[in-house]
Amino acid sequence: MPELSVSQFSLVYNMLSLAIAAMLGSFAFFVMARSQVSLRFRPALVMSSLVVGIAGYHYWRIFGSWDAAYRLNDAHTAYVATGKPFNDAYRYVDWLLTVPLLVAELVAVMTLPKGKRGAIMGKLIIASALMIALGYPGEVSNDQATALLWGTLSSVPFAYILYVLWGELSKSTAGESGEVNILLRNTKLLLIGTWGFYPITYILGIESLGLVSGANAVVALQVGYSLADIAAKCGYGLMIYAIAQARMAAAGETVDGTAAQAAH
Amino acid sequence: MPELSVSQFSLVYNMLSLAIAAMLGSFAFFVMARSQVSLRFRPALVMSSLVVGIAGYHYWRIFGSWDAAYRLNDAHTAYVATGKPFNDAYRYVDWLLTVPLLVAELVAVMTLPKGKRGAIMGKLIIASALMIALGYPGEVSNDQATALLWGTLSSVPFAYILYVLWGELSKSTAGESGEVNILLRNTKLLLIGTWGFYPITYILGIESLGLVSGANAVVALQVGYSLADIAAKCGYGLMIYAIAQARMAAAGETVDGTAAQAAH
Repeated sequence: MPELSVSQFSLVYNMLSLAIAAMLGSFAFFVMARSQVSLRFRPALVMSSLVVGIAGYHYWRIFGSWDAAYRLNDAHTAYVATGKPFNDAYRYVDWLLTVPLLVAELVAVMTLPKGKRGAIMGKLIIASALMIALGYPGEVSNDQATALLWGTLSSVPFAYILYVLWGELSKSTAGESGEVNILLRNTKLLLIGTWGFYPITYILGIESLGLVSGANAVVALQVGYSLADIAAKCGYGLMIYAIAQARMAAAGETVDGTAAQAAH
Repeated sequence: MPELSVSQFSLVYNMLSLAIAAMLGSFAFFVMARSQVSLRFRPALVMSSLVVGIAGYHYWRIFGSWDAAYRLNDAHTAYVATGKPFNDAYRYVDWLLTVPLLVAELVAVMTLPKGKRGAIMGKLIIASALMIALGYPGEVSNDQATALLWGTLSSVPFAYILYVLWGELSKSTAGESGEVNILLRNTKLLLIGTWGFYPITYILGIESLGLVSGANAVVALQVGYSLADIAAKCGYGLMIYAIAQARMAAAGETVDGTAAQAAH
């Protein structure tokens, strides 16, 4: 780990703490928000809660690992490595659990025939777990060829997920109301926009390519990952909640699952 | 960090612990109180819970940072700095997440046409996030001119928030019952009264102005911020709850959202 200035260390430290607060705050929100949607949308809210709950745990660990990896030097002018390794594997463990849930969440708020929904969800969950698992050997390797090989293998399920979400699912949402369609489109854009960040970071992180290095690279990676995770988990979950609300409004549905007309 | 007497250190220490207890206690209250209000007021209670839950997390961290920043000297007569920096940035991260929620909470208990509510809430959330983000560079700067520049920039969205709350929202509440109107007025006064504390503290904290300094200043700031946060978050949330109850009573509404007359 390179030496960091006090403000560089603090920026990462505070960004990791922000991520903990955002994840745990979102967890409380999604748990409580279940009672604000009708029965058919509750599974999506449950998945949103699990994603941010699991991520909150991992950010707590990453924060602790960051704090243990550095100490203030004796002159109080900079942070130097303690020698204890900073454990970046927490991120991969987190993604292995949360990414399949994120794609399942999106499928859960879409209108799909019951049989088709299970099949699509199954394919996407397997593809997303494969994507993370194939990326990991490349991330921990110091060999450029190995990193590129596993990175390329990991891109195959990544491309497959995009193909399914864009192609098959776009077809199935043709009958939705205008507001629901706009929200679904924005959610898919958010998913692609935030997910696009991870392969870029992966390539930048291959040290032998010499694309970035030193203290700035460490800071940029941690800040970038944290912001991307907040957008891809908390922001994405809020969009899923908004889709559920818009679909309830379009169908005239109340939270207990009855149509609004019937209640009058 | 200046040397503190044992009682000065302990006063801050116990005040930070009081804030943790107040925030986490309020979190439990607002989560449970959701079932005491009708459906339309639950989003406001959810927001109150998130505010105090997130603040509880940050006070937990601030408490830990305070404890790590000082140690008892060998003669056990005073507290001296350990050299580990006291991280005041937790407060800014907290405000960045909670202040937009606080303004949204107030809008959520007011009677506004559905379209207008979203527009006002959006403007206030953006303005309040901007207010916090613009204040931060000034708070961390040691340069008087920089601090005053960012402080002034931060005042623009602050003034805008006051203008919207006082002007537009006062108009929209003209049709409310006497009790509801008094509660809404008191809540706005509490909001302005507590929020007014933060810019005063910001100006006092610019060391080169020489307004306050030394141990007393450190103690006054921490005690002042903690008391202001308890009033602006727990007290304010209780007022929002009282407004929801008064509005339910005025409309003859029960907790399941039906009119009281129909239930008789």
